[in-house]
Amino acid sequence: MIKKINHIAIVVPDLNESMRFWVDALGLELDHIENVPEQSVDAAFLPVGESKIELLRPTDDESGVARYLAKRGPGMHHICFEVDDIEASLARLKSLDIPLINEEPITGSGGKRLAFVHPKGTGGVLVELYQLPPKNSPIPEL
Amino acid sequence: MIKKINHIAIVVPDLNESMRFWVDALGLELDHIENVPEQSVDAAFLPVGESKIELLRPTDDESGVARYLAKRGPGMHHICFEVDDIEASLARLKSLDIPLINEEPITGSGGKRLAFVHPKGTGGVLVELYQLPPKNSPIPEL
Repeated sequence: MIKKINHIAIVVPDLNESMRFWVDALGLELDHIENVPEQSVDAAFLPVGESKIELLRPTDDESGVARYLAKRGPGMHHICFEVDDIEASLARLKSLDIPLINEEPITGSGGKRLAFVHPKGTGGVLVELYQLPPKNSPIPEL
Repeated sequence: MIKKINHIAIVVPDLNESMRFWVDALGLELDHIENVPEQSVDAAFLPVGESKIELLRPTDDESGVARYLAKRGPGMHHICFEVDDIEASLARLKSLDIPLINEEPITGSGGKRLAFVHPKGTGGVLVELYQLPPKNSPIPEL
């Protein structure tokens, strides 16, 4: 059901400043930075093993990430797990009355399907589930 | 330098209660629970991919984990990275004036060597570094 940790998301006020620790000091490599409009953040992706560190900088003052930063300060924001079958995962969570932020999967960049589980149901941790599109989906021959 | 995420540590007030989400709902497997006296916690280990979720329940009221729980409530506590050479990692951090909780590695269970980096130097994230003993260290023949 759960394949691996896809990423750990960390809220930062300034991406360039945060590179001093994660890249210069710790030695991770910056893969790329992209704007993620649906979360109102700029995100920096730093691969580590089979997972990634994602540094999130809010691009407005109203989004969930911006309000988290204002309230709690910089730090770990959520953990994202890759699952085989996000519908099955959400059905299992619902059957146990775990509160969900997204009752149905939403589609993100690259065709991944994702949903957030409410921290009320996890013991204080914001949990994201990803189902990635299959890498080897057959391409029809023309 | 950094090999992978070894674990994500999550502070919980009650290990049994927390299994409802992490095991029953999310579908992770509980590998084992052990007492970790040097951190004054009982720790539950739940493997996921090449990493683990570690649920930490304080066993006293004075330890760092207990004070974190009292101040911030349950949630993500620290992220632990496996490194090849912990002395080299600490030297690099010191050379950039990153504040460390452990200036020198301490030895934990199973012979692993570990050190914590202060959240002041990471942008609000408590970071732990692990160097595991080699798995294939030669056993002298008798």
